[in-house]
Amino acid sequence: MRDIIERLKRLPEADRASAEAAAARQARLTKPPGSLGRLEALAGWLAAWQGRHPPRLERIRIAVFAGNHGVVARGVSAYPAEVTVQMVANFRAGGAAINQLARAMGAELVVTPLALERPTADFTRAPALSEAELRAALGAGAAAAEEGLDVLCVGEMGIGNTTVAAALAAALLGGTGADWVGRGTGVDDGGLARKAAAVDAALKLHGAALADPLEALRRVGGRELAAIAGAVLRARELRIPVVIDGFVATAAAAVWAKAEPGALDHCVAGHCSAEAGHKGLLDRLGLKPLLDLGMRLGEASGAAVAIGILRAAVATHSGMATFEEAGVSDKPK
Amino acid sequence: MRDIIERLKRLPEADRASAEAAAARQARLTKPPGSLGRLEALAGWLAAWQGRHPPRLERIRIAVFAGNHGVVARGVSAYPAEVTVQMVANFRAGGAAINQLARAMGAELVVTPLALERPTADFTRAPALSEAELRAALGAGAAAAEEGLDVLCVGEMGIGNTTVAAALAAALLGGTGADWVGRGTGVDDGGLARKAAAVDAALKLHGAALADPLEALRRVGGRELAAIAGAVLRARELRIPVVIDGFVATAAAAVWAKAEPGALDHCVAGHCSAEAGHKGLLDRLGLKPLLDLGMRLGEASGAAVAIGILRAAVATHSGMATFEEAGVSDKPK
Repeated sequence: MRDIIERLKRLPEADRASAEAAAARQARLTKPPGSLGRLEALAGWLAAWQGRHPPRLERIRIAVFAGNHGVVARGVSAYPAEVTVQMVANFRAGGAAINQLARAMGAELVVTPLALERPTADFTRAPALSEAELRAALGAGAAAAEEGLDVLCVGEMGIGNTTVAAALAAALLGGTGADWVGRGTGVDDGGLARKAAAVDAALKLHGAALADPLEALRRVGGRELAAIAGAVLRARELRIPVVIDGFVATAAAAVWAKAEPGALDHCVAGHCSAEAGHKGLLDRLGLKPLLDLGMRLGEASGAAVAIGILRAAVATHSGMATFEEAGVSDKPK
Repeated sequence: MRDIIERLKRLPEADRASAEAAAARQARLTKPPGSLGRLEALAGWLAAWQGRHPPRLERIRIAVFAGNHGVVARGVSAYPAEVTVQMVANFRAGGAAINQLARAMGAELVVTPLALERPTADFTRAPALSEAELRAALGAGAAAAEEGLDVLCVGEMGIGNTTVAAALAAALLGGTGADWVGRGTGVDDGGLARKAAAVDAALKLHGAALADPLEALRRVGGRELAAIAGAVLRARELRIPVVIDGFVATAAAAVWAKAEPGALDHCVAGHCSAEAGHKGLLDRLGLKPLLDLGMRLGEASGAAVAIGILRAAVATHSGMATFEEAGVSDKPK
């Protein structure tokens, strides 16, 4: 996977001129400096990564990747694996939460099911993916990060994948299964113990091989996580700002944070989910979530709700009058 | 003010049948129970107070009340009092933050300036308002809570009014000036000390009279705070759900919480502002803010951003398929 490591060494940075133009305008708008809080920083972040001032929110894409997982055989989910396929059909029919949120927020929804008929290998017994399978999933994700998008939101669907995310988080950042697993779609205490045990078994089996972030993604990840990683990386290369959804999406993005400092500078965390490990994971990555509404659905639902905050940031930044235009006193007495 | 106390004894409650219909539908939607977190509770809260299932978000009004304050003579603001009038002109011209947010969120904006040419009395020396002035302001606020609204957001503009809000919070909930004042639009350490001193002087002057919440509003409040209180009370009588904005709006609403337990059951806090006293005030009132973005502008700006979350709640609640409709397995294995 040396080619990918090489790409990580050539990541583009944000456009400084657009960031400076945004900061200069922000200082002249009719409000006390800083009084719009994170909305001000978000407007600057969007301008910087879009390389455009004022920033624009015309083409927002929500990419949802779906995968199935061999580790489901360990009894780690409250729902059967068939639900992944059923939910993809629900996305297609427009009946899921993310369909409603995409419409409400004015975003395009792209759903990519990834070989759902071929679950990954049970990572307590073997690597989840072959290198070819990993590359295919990374590529499927990259395809969702299309040039011309103003923002890309990334999320997932996959029965069993909070266990996968916990294993990946532990592989990348240390700790045991108990440190990273949560109740997912709603497992009982027995399910929670099985999740922790599955993660611990994977950590033991794969051992030192997990020190390489991409190899960790291959061994204890999954197709939808790899696709999210692929989308995040390609978005960075295209300088598309990214909104990361919940625990699973954050664990996938963490692969790049581990491999290359600053690799997630083009990302914000849409929300902090109720899944137990998410807050700690965000903290470790230095990502401050925009929302904390106790959501834990996945499907990019938290990232989608955060689009409303981005719209507020762009609307105020672009539409407000300056002190001069409005004839408002801008100087303290 | 006995008539108002009588109104507080006759407040309507939420509609239980609509709340139950919302809960029943929520349980059948294609997601794990509870996985949309606060969005689920918000959909139920909107249904319950609107007395309608499914809840609706067609007519959202943002009411901004503006007032001027005699206590500005104590050097409590970084901006001169003229800015209140200038900002009302900016609202009228469409150049302020709230104009952009109202448009972005699909809400109607109603701005009510309240006798800006006659600031309240300096409450360190006399009651801020006469009883007639208080009644006029309460009535102006009530007029903004019009029958048929689906949601009402309340906010304010008024140079010096974070000092007023701090005084009112201290009067209602105890503590000294230092416990409640913050930097407002951006005062320096000297300004912060003058704010605390002004509040302490008011607490000393008005003393035991502040034990009556309405009398506290009259003595250490202001017109825009009274108008917010009037809007919140009238909205309750009309069963219109209310989104409270920042520190000043919350202090105004706190008058009713102090006077009658449960009087704010029809309200949510749109956000926690960066103004120092707001978090503690929300905690004391048992209000859990929807957003925490470091905003401190007022103008109902935080409440307006929260409209996006309400839209997400209604969109998912109303638009999602049920398990039966989608053919998705709803039972754990």
